[in-house]
Amino acid sequence: MDTSAITASVISELGSITGSEHVLTSDEDRLCYAFDGQRVERVPDAVVRPADAGQISAILRLANDAGFTVVPRGGGTGLSGGSVVSGPGIVLDLTRMNRIIEIDTGNMHAIVEPGVITAALAGEVDKLNLLYPPDPGSVKVSTMGGNVAENAGGLRAVKYGVTRNYLMQVQAVSPTGEEFKSGARTRKCVAGYDLVGLMCGSEGTLGVLTQISVRLVPLPKYRRSMTATFHTAAAAGQAIANIMAAGLQPATLEIIDNFTLRTIEDYAHLGLPIDAGALVLAEFDGLVECAVAEDGETAVRVLNESGASDVQSARDADERDRLWQARRTALAALSRAKPTSILEDVTVPLPQLAPMLEQIERIARDNHQVIGTFGHAGDGNLHPTILTDERDKEEMVRVDDAIGQLIDAALQFGGTVSGEHGIGFAKAPYLAQEVGPGSIEVMRGIKRALDPNNVLNPGKFV
Amino acid sequence: MDTSAITASVISELGSITGSEHVLTSDEDRLCYAFDGQRVERVPDAVVRPADAGQISAILRLANDAGFTVVPRGGGTGLSGGSVVSGPGIVLDLTRMNRIIEIDTGNMHAIVEPGVITAALAGEVDKLNLLYPPDPGSVKVSTMGGNVAENAGGLRAVKYGVTRNYLMQVQAVSPTGEEFKSGARTRKCVAGYDLVGLMCGSEGTLGVLTQISVRLVPLPKYRRSMTATFHTAAAAGQAIANIMAAGLQPATLEIIDNFTLRTIEDYAHLGLPIDAGALVLAEFDGLVECAVAEDGETAVRVLNESGASDVQSARDADERDRLWQARRTALAALSRAKPTSILEDVTVPLPQLAPMLEQIERIARDNHQVIGTFGHAGDGNLHPTILTDERDKEEMVRVDDAIGQLIDAALQFGGTVSGEHGIGFAKAPYLAQEVGPGSIEVMRGIKRALDPNNVLNPGKFV
Repeated sequence: MDTSAITASVISELGSITGSEHVLTSDEDRLCYAFDGQRVERVPDAVVRPADAGQISAILRLANDAGFTVVPRGGGTGLSGGSVVSGPGIVLDLTRMNRIIEIDTGNMHAIVEPGVITAALAGEVDKLNLLYPPDPGSVKVSTMGGNVAENAGGLRAVKYGVTRNYLMQVQAVSPTGEEFKSGARTRKCVAGYDLVGLMCGSEGTLGVLTQISVRLVPLPKYRRSMTATFHTAAAAGQAIANIMAAGLQPATLEIIDNFTLRTIEDYAHLGLPIDAGALVLAEFDGLVECAVAEDGETAVRVLNESGASDVQSARDADERDRLWQARRTALAALSRAKPTSILEDVTVPLPQLAPMLEQIERIARDNHQVIGTFGHAGDGNLHPTILTDERDKEEMVRVDDAIGQLIDAALQFGGTVSGEHGIGFAKAPYLAQEVGPGSIEVMRGIKRALDPNNVLNPGKFV
Repeated sequence: MDTSAITASVISELGSITGSEHVLTSDEDRLCYAFDGQRVERVPDAVVRPADAGQISAILRLANDAGFTVVPRGGGTGLSGGSVVSGPGIVLDLTRMNRIIEIDTGNMHAIVEPGVITAALAGEVDKLNLLYPPDPGSVKVSTMGGNVAENAGGLRAVKYGVTRNYLMQVQAVSPTGEEFKSGARTRKCVAGYDLVGLMCGSEGTLGVLTQISVRLVPLPKYRRSMTATFHTAAAAGQAIANIMAAGLQPATLEIIDNFTLRTIEDYAHLGLPIDAGALVLAEFDGLVECAVAEDGETAVRVLNESGASDVQSARDADERDRLWQARRTALAALSRAKPTSILEDVTVPLPQLAPMLEQIERIARDNHQVIGTFGHAGDGNLHPTILTDERDKEEMVRVDDAIGQLIDAALQFGGTVSGEHGIGFAKAPYLAQEVGPGSIEVMRGIKRALDPNNVLNPGKFV
């Protein structure tokens, strides 16, 4: 399939579906859709902004007939290339479909269109004393549709789980243009294959989401936050494993290594302990005050017993906010330190956190790379971030070697290439290494069955 | 495909794969595999008992070559026909593959073969102060493979979720005989399509599980159980919705209606309040004593405010065990009351519990049926059970009408045909009504892609 498929006649037909004002073809407009959070430039041939499922269906039927490819896109904040084109084709911008259709406090669910910004939903349900737990770093910009397509995690995943855990029902349009739905607005449903789960995390390759029903939970009333410093990242990792092994359920449990601490401090001047080998941040939340207090005390004890050099509890909401600002700033700070930052998303079993953190340091040394590591270590998810300059081709060979070694280490520890960012094209070469050829064949079979003409987000992992 | 495919030569080849002592062909042996929990008699042509993934792969390759069908089976306790043949074919009995391969207390996971009895795993992890939460009614007989294939729920699902929520990784053999794996031994994984979720609840139609890794949680240390009586089932249903809307997280929250209460009491003599319109049973558990106590007190208050005529807290473990014995006896007691019992599995959003319970009573009256209702009402899952006699063909027409009306009501309330038992062939006619033709086409596309010769558990929902 080549660019020539996007003919003037196709552009005109797209315009007749959505209104021509919602078909963007200028260089300036198209360039806005050429990047995701990883800044790989891939310019689409056109951008189409549909208003409803019927228009999406018509666009996909046209794509199958005329032979062009379609990449669905929400906030475009993904980190593995899922929302940018991999070759000639159009981007389907879903941000016009941004209605919150219903918030039901009795059944604790919300129904939204895919273009709703995740933080906008979170804000509305908060007013009703409810919580939508998934909170990826991009929560203020990313959309619910994008979060579902990538099965987004976030800071609270260690206690509350990921997007999949909150999905009740989806409506979608298949790659061939058929509307379908799956799931129910109930807490359990086993009616047929789990298409809700299959769509979630399929990175826009199996269908375009048009309506999403999510479960909400009661808003926690009490919080307790704390930090602990350790001499080494491995010691911090072991402390995190110890907290989880003690049966505690922190809402958030994060690690920031020394390099990342110093980079954040340079950038944001928060008074962080820049001499620490690593910082552990933990927060407990809940509806029962005594339980949050008791869990917090147990956590302080475990951190001390795990060799923390200093454990501090946040005294008030301001101090707590400052802590979380530090964590949320990590990627932005690292990204500014060097021309190119490459964020990995390896995830390991908890007992392997400390050895994995040691391996990351060894891999940095052996390959003469600067790697800053932070992440949701409470669920084993680490973001070792290589700081480099992609214009230096010789250097990039060493970077690729380091990435390969990071992934080898994670897989040898029984872990995964991606805990939350997805495969896209950034991690595609490593997926087969992780799951093996049998699994890849099953995935390809599913893709071919649902998308026989390979029009929807082709060239990605599958 | 007809019986003639199971030729003497096929039987001989199966014997050369597993050893002939593991190929059962006598009438007596085959009859043991003709039923599941619903007692629909469908006798397989042979039963094969493989020892490992390699043998399963060889059997499936032979099935594709020779043209016979294969139905995987664990404990055979399903309630929708998933583990019995729907026509000529063999049953693949997986109970020889019953090793617990690993229990890792650090990462809190267990790795098992599919034939491990769920209660056997639960018993082993309990010794290590851990909990495997899913506990279907059949827990002492059903297998981990069967639980995954049906995405089993159980009494604890309202707090802990269903089998899917504990699956980390599966290894399986595809219908064409290819071994594959999906997932990782980590708390998060988004590496490719969610084949773990797709296999879970696919009712043995997409692959045969050969190894299962599940997440464990810390064993709760404290429990508080209580009962409340209400004048009507609807009032009990509303009280349950009120408990959940108050933000409480009971480990278990069940309803038993008056008819079921009286039937259990006749059968088990437990001293149940047989004059109550319905009984609510609730249990709270946790690792923090003050939280379990506070939640229990809040629940008592909500039950009283919801119009309970009598609220009783269990004074000790014996009294608690008696309560749960009552609940666990419900299906057995109802099954003995009449020659035929037909258990439904409808699930509705929580605000629709009370109206659904009223609808069930109306449907029983209108169709002159006896329906006993109990279930995991805390997650909206009800088991209205029609007591009848299938030998009376005229009566069975009215039974079918009543079932159709139960399902219509659940779907009109935004619910589902099946909360935990699955579709099998028992519920197949209703699946399309629930999900619509678009969704059925997607499911069929997936089935055709993975099982082009339709050898694995054909004739089921898809």
